[in-house]
Parts: sequence; structure tokens; C-alpha cells
Amino acid sequence: MEGGAAASTPAALPYYVAFSQLLGLTLVAMTGAWLGLYRGGIAWESDLQFNAHPLCMVIGLVFLQGDALLVYRVFRNEAKRTTKVLHGLLHIFALVIALVGLVAVFDYHRKKGYADLYSLHSWCGILVFVLYFVQWLVGFSFFLFPGAPFSLRSRYRPQHIFFGATIFLLSVGTALLGLKEALLFNLGDKYSAFQPEGVLANVLGLLLACFGGAVLYILTRADWKRPSQAEEQALSMDFKTLTEGDSPGSQ
Amino acid sequence: MEGGAAASTPAALPYYVAFSQLLGLTLVAMTGAWLGLYRGGIAWESDLQFNAHPLCMVIGLVFLQGDALLVYRVFRNEAKRTTKVLHGLLHIFALVIALVGLVAVFDYHRKKGYADLYSLHSWCGILVFVLYFVQWLVGFSFFLFPGAPFSLRSRYRPQHIFFGATIFLLSVGTALLGLKEALLFNLGDKYSAFQPEGVLANVLGLLLACFGGAVLYILTRADWKRPSQAEEQALSMDFKTLTEGDSPGSQ
Repeated sequence: MEGGAAASTPAALPYYVAFSQLLGLTLVAMTGAWLGLYRGGIAWESDLQFNAHPLCMVIGLVFLQGDALLVYRVFRNEAKRTTKVLHGLLHIFALVIALVGLVAVFDYHRKKGYADLYSLHSWCGILVFVLYFVQWLVGFSFFLFPGAPFSLRSRYRPQHIFFGATIFLLSVGTALLGLKEALLFNLGDKYSAFQPEGVLANVLGLLLACFGGAVLYILTRADWKRPSQAEEQALSMDFKTLTEGDSPGSQ
Repeated sequence: MEGGAAASTPAALPYYVAFSQLLGLTLVAMTGAWLGLYRGGIAWESDLQFNAHPLCMVIGLVFLQGDALLVYRVFRNEAKRTTKVLHGLLHIFALVIALVGLVAVFDYHRKKGYADLYSLHSWCGILVFVLYFVQWLVGFSFFLFPGAPFSLRSRYRPQHIFFGATIFLLSVGTALLGLKEALLFNLGDKYSAFQPEGVLANVLGLLLACFGGAVLYILTRADWKRPSQAEEQALSMDFKTLTEGDSPGSQ
């Protein structure tokens, strides 16, 4: 059945996706370069443990989370079930990597005797983490676990998409706050002297915002939405569109 | 013709709009309270000139910009032309107030001999300001200035909406960066001791993020979009939906 109603991919979509991936990879590489060149690199058993935090968060909660949102646009003509599993898996990878980043910073604070959770960055970060975890659990229960009625799925679907995009944007915002915090802690007055580290980190911040914007653009463009396929009407694993209302045979 | 095809307002919309306004006003009041209680208040001719910057930016580029985006959801059954003019006017107010805030900080830096435009906050701020101005000019040329063909309007419309929402979110992010900068500059090590100012400012930061989220939710909910009205089919001032494609009689 797969590909039975295969719609053509919009001409510009692959270029936008490629651009977003280029941005995302540059972002990860630049975070690594910043930590390697100016912050002494990354290790788990020394003061460099802190540096695992920004790298894990950028890879997990920015790059992988962003890519998980794009899965439905990129794999337009694959079976919905496959795409759904890939979406869930990418989010699990993102969550696990983010968890490592979270452990890194709490462990570093504990060893150094620093206070936890006093800053706006940390408050936003904990909020992102809790929302992300809840979103994953609720998403799993509704869309992957069999048994959720169509009517519930179709009502929850737009909420899932909205909160997914919002949590992603809040993750980007939290990363910007963290970057700013690191710059002010480490550079202090030297920040205003246009030191190379400050300029590199500012460019990294702009790239973070651009990646967020690129993912949001691909995600929200109406004519790039995944087309509904014939198989999706038949399989109970798939949710129906809101306009169709309740299904008579909701499990 | 007005109200000829008046659609009913969705039941939950007024509550969400009221909630967003409550958030927005609390946000402005709390910014004022922060500056008044902990930063010595606001004046133009002293060191307090700096404090005009955060207040103007929160009023202009967060609260008023957010409300300008909501105009099409709130005034659902008014003439499109009226709503459009209100949307443009709110954006002008926002721009002028933001300009005052911008002058305040540059003037303050000049008097104190501080460097300009070195921080991530300032880079994002300038980006927001340029994008906001360009968006206003392009929006005016396409939608208010008579003469733009339907085909152009209908193709530009989704871009205008996307960039409008993105610039608004970037404004909220830039405000968060600025708040964080002010906290680290002013509180330093005391920030980690959970001082009242730090806690108040963190709550203000979360409110900023919540206001951004609330506006985005009202804006993007598909069943809350403004219904197209009979008059809009007839008036050349209004743009047609993308699905209708090009109009034969553009202009």
C-alpha cells in the first residue's frame, strides 16, 4: 500500500531541509569549536565536565529535537507508522543526550559547591525538560500505544504539534540564555572589547536563532504539510484530520 | 456589508485572549516594579536613563507587538480594512516606543563611554529592529497601499504571517537575553543567593516566555482563524486565500 497515493515532494522543500541541516551541523561544530578553542575542551572527570553540558544540550535539545520535528516533512511518502516510530526514536535520543548534559552540570555544581537552579537559564531549562518529557509520554500514549480512540487522537493532534514547536523554541531560547550566561561569567569586561571568543559565541547565538527559524518555517508552511495517504484511512494506528470529526469505530 | 457573513466567535477564544492580556499587563507592571523597586526608577537625564530601555522594549516590542498580531483574531467580524489599519497602527506605536527605548540605551552608553553592540543581546536586538521595520514597510506596500495585485498579495500573505510571528518570538528571546544581562551585571555573585531581585526577574522572564506562548497559541489555532467574509471577495483592498490562486483581474 505504501506509495499508493505517493504525492510529489514540493520542489523547494529539499533545499530548505538541506539548508536547515547545514545550519544544524554548523551549530554543533561551532559549539564544539568554542568549547575546544576557548574553554579547554570536554572531559567528565575534571573542571571540563561543565563543558559537556552545552554540547549535549545543543546536540540533543536543539539539533536532534529540531530534526525530530522535520521527520514528517522529509519522509512524506513513507508509511506513517515508520515515520512515527522514527519521530519517537529521535526524541528519545534527544532526551537521553540532554539527560547526560543535565547530569554533567548538576554533578559539576555539586563538586564545586555551586548553587543550583537560581538563574533564569536554569528555570527555563527545567521547564523545557519537564514539558519535553510530558510531551513524549502523552504523545506515546496517544499515537504509538494502540488503543487511543480516533476522536481523542484527532483532538490532541494540533495540541501535540503546537506544544512540540513551542518546546523546541523554548529550548533554543534557553540555549541562548545559557550561552549568554557563559560569556558573561567567563569574559566579564573583556566581552565589550570584541574578543574573538565573544564574537564567535555571538555568531553561534545567531545561528541557534536561525536554526530555530528554519525548522519553524519548514514545519509551518501549509503547502509542505505531509499529504494524507490512502493507507492512513485504513490503519487504526493513524489519526484522522480534525475536520473529519469522530470516528464511529473508536476502539 | 459589515457583519453580513458574521461568523460566531469560538467559545474559548475570549478567555484565551483575556488570559494573554492579563499576562501582558502583568508583564509590563512587573517590569515597572523591577525597575522601580530595585533599579531606582526611570528618568531621561541621569543614570536612570538606561531603565527607559527595558520598559520601552517590553511595552513596544513585546506587549504591543503581540497585541498587533492578535487583532485579526479579536476583531473577527469587523470590516477587514478597519482591522488592517488597527494592525498597522499598533505596529507603528510599537515601533515608535521601541525607538525611544533604543535611543535611551545608545544615549546612555555614549554618556558613560560604554561600547555599543558587542553583546548577543544587542546583535539580536538590532536584527529584530531591522526585520521589524522591513516587515512593516513590505506589509504596508502589499496590503495597505492600493495597487498590489491579488496574486502577489496571496503569495506574500503566508510569508508575512510567518515572519510576523518569528520577529515577535525573536523579540521575546531578545528581551530574555537583555534581562539576563541586566541581572548578571547588577547582581553578580548575589544572583546565586536567591536575592529577591533575582527571583522577581526570573519570574518576569518566565512571564515573558508565557506571553509569547499564549500569543502564538491564539495565532496558530486553525479553528480560531478569521473567517473570510463576503465583503472580502468584493473589495480589492483585501487579499484572497492561497488556495484560490491568482485572480484574473489583479488590482
